[in-house]
Amino acid sequence: MTGIPIDLARVVSDVRVGAPLVHCITAAVSMNLVADAVLAAGARPMMTETAAEAPAMDAIADALLVNLGSLSADGAAGIEPTVAVARLDARPWVLDPAAVGVAPTRTALAARLLPDHPAVVRGNASEVLALAGRGSGGRGADATDTAENALDAALALAREYGCVVAVSGAVDLVTDGTRILRVHNGHPLLTRVTGTGCSLGALVAACAAVADPLVAALTATVWLGLAGERAAARSTWPGSFRVALIDELAALTPADVAAGARFEEAP
Amino acid sequence: MTGIPIDLARVVSDVRVGAPLVHCITAAVSMNLVADAVLAAGARPMMTETAAEAPAMDAIADALLVNLGSLSADGAAGIEPTVAVARLDARPWVLDPAAVGVAPTRTALAARLLPDHPAVVRGNASEVLALAGRGSGGRGADATDTAENALDAALALAREYGCVVAVSGAVDLVTDGTRILRVHNGHPLLTRVTGTGCSLGALVAACAAVADPLVAALTATVWLGLAGERAAARSTWPGSFRVALIDELAALTPADVAAGARFEEAP
Amino acid sequence: MTGIPIDLARVVSDVRVGAPLVHCITAAVSMNLVADAVLAAGARPMMTETAAEAPAMDAIADALLVNLGSLSADGAAGIEPTVAVARLDARPWVLDPAAVGVAPTRTALAARLLPDHPAVVRGNASEVLALAGRGSGGRGADATDTAENALDAALALAREYGCVVAVSGAVDLVTDGTRILRVHNGHPLLTRVTGTGCSLGALVAACAAVADPLVAALTATVWLGLAGERAAARSTWPGSFRVALIDELAALTPADVAAGARFEEAP
Repeated sequence: MTGIPIDLARVVSDVRVGAPLVHCITAAVSMNLVADAVLAAGARPMMTETAAEAPAMDAIADALLVNLGSLSADGAAGIEPTVAVARLDARPWVLDPAAVGVAPTRTALAARLLPDHPAVVRGNASEVLALAGRGSGGRGADATDTAENALDAALALAREYGCVVAVSGAVDLVTDGTRILRVHNGHPLLTRVTGTGCSLGALVAACAAVADPLVAALTATVWLGLAGERAAARSTWPGSFRVALIDELAALTPADVAAGARFEEAP
Repeated sequence: MTGIPIDLARVVSDVRVGAPLVHCITAAVSMNLVADAVLAAGARPMMTETAAEAPAMDAIADALLVNLGSLSADGAAGIEPTVAVARLDARPWVLDPAAVGVAPTRTALAARLLPDHPAVVRGNASEVLALAGRGSGGRGADATDTAENALDAALALAREYGCVVAVSGAVDLVTDGTRILRVHNGHPLLTRVTGTGCSLGALVAACAAVADPLVAALTATVWLGLAGERAAARSTWPGSFRVALIDELAALTPADVAAGARFEEAP
Repeated sequence: MTGIPIDLARVVSDVRVGAPLVHCITAAVSMNLVADAVLAAGARPMMTETAAEAPAMDAIADALLVNLGSLSADGAAGIEPTVAVARLDARPWVLDPAAVGVAPTRTALAARLLPDHPAVVRGNASEVLALAGRGSGGRGADATDTAENALDAALALAREYGCVVAVSGAVDLVTDGTRILRVHNGHPLLTRVTGTGCSLGALVAACAAVADPLVAALTATVWLGLAGERAAARSTWPGSFRVALIDELAALTPADVAAGARFEEAP
């Protein structure tokens, strides 16, 4: 290991104790799972998205998630003023560039948001490639590239914008432009439930309220991946897996997360 | 007991037999749970919220819920004309002032709605205090005050606007400005699932379609609380608790609700 | 049997192998269940609905569902340009005229959409009667007529617009204006969970991406009905039934669907 120490148990514990208020601007389709995931983790969700209220409400939050997936036009209009408030208060915010590359409005919006210093950008490989101007954005929520294919794009984004980039995939990548972490936790059933990627973005935001962005992105990735592994051990099919996933996010103790983590740092 | 008799079993039975159509204008984040809770109780949900359609659709409903939580701008614009239709038809309507106090647009909207004779106002302590001009509205969905702290505010609102006020908390309060009922049913896991408060508002509306507002608010509070107790006996974690909660709302018989009710009236 | 052969197993298998991308414009209240049902079936959901993005995104889809239930104003505005794109690309699209007849805006919109050659129209009896100008549209999501009462209306719509019409009910009807199929799969608990009708519409679209519209509508109706039967065998109450329904949509093999199908063709 190089650089700052990585204490996953501490991050989970601090989320549980501090119960940060996570302002989530996110896709309607997965809003409920995201809010339940945030609650299960021990943090508190706030889902206000309108242009009239989101900037004002953000002032009471501890972190902000901006997920570009399937936003209403009104929700999209509220994003930039809300990010401006978060920046003014030095509040960490997470950009989840869902469907960027394929969705015209979102691609332009994501490009305008990147210079606004997100603490973490979290997406799948196709989204990260598209964000870095190196790919077409996949098809909807599905990545058509592996995380490893997006490594150069992730490094470039992280360096250019001074943020952490987390790329979801069978093996996840987390990088701040210098350090490169690969996470092996997770389970294929996570891709069979709508909103697990969005939930990861919200968990990253919850962790970023209490920890350094790199450690936050790593902890959230391990935490959700491990919950997915344990949920898959309880249920083979996606309906009951979804229920078990929320249970396991809540049931995992700080020590469980530390003990179950499977990641390594590139030398 | 004083005043009108309280027959909880009768209310539950009348909801089951009458299957009232409950028009729910409510937060996107919990809309699905609210609709499933209404169905589980034996009533029928209708979720139309646009300004173009909500007022027209309200004419076929038996009761109306107006929940101010995380509304779209268009949904917010439809509230006042919809309430006007409900009032014209003497249809009972329930105001759930979610996040009032912290959300600027909603605070003003709630103030304009109160004189429109809601049958019941249902909120947490922070929301009721904010509505009465006595508090700051908590932080997002979380009350930062106990229900008991909001007793004076609840009495004042009930007397000024001629409505019933139901304050959710570890012990719930229900008052019409004269009678004061305290409900001890419920379980802490209800606060770990997004939308249980919104679902309570919809159940109050379903009960208000068939009963006096005070009895309706009391029955719904006991019914959801009891379902929470039974769900918590089946599952310790929030994902499976949420599933069990809907099951138990449906499984509870009128006699179960009457037998399991734990409330007392202030002398 | 007359006309083209009906091979349900083949349709299920082709959905699983092809994993068609199903663009779903659908009610906020059931959007999450619809997306999870599409994933469980083996297809992939895309939920973009804004006027700015839905037409552009539709170009990457394999089929389109347009469900008129509880749409946002912005979502409603995007429907006609999106359907125009689908038509231009000869992409199959499914019209689910939710609450048509009772909801003024939707009634007019549905009338404008019908000449745009939907592959399948799927609704309950009251909706199909209203669409054919023969009924009032029921009350919200509930049909107040049996599917059989809507047979003439379904035949008339199918013949006038050259589409398949699927009418949901205790016994479901599927017709192309010539052939009439009656499906006996299903379970009453399907009516106790919000969004099962919407999910059926999305499954019809998934199947229409790989099969003839008549066979697609039949397969989807059998598939969801059979999943409902198996879910009801696992759980008596609506919360756990909802979870089991998604599980069973995924667990049913092509051979299971073929073996469990209960339908007959009118001579």
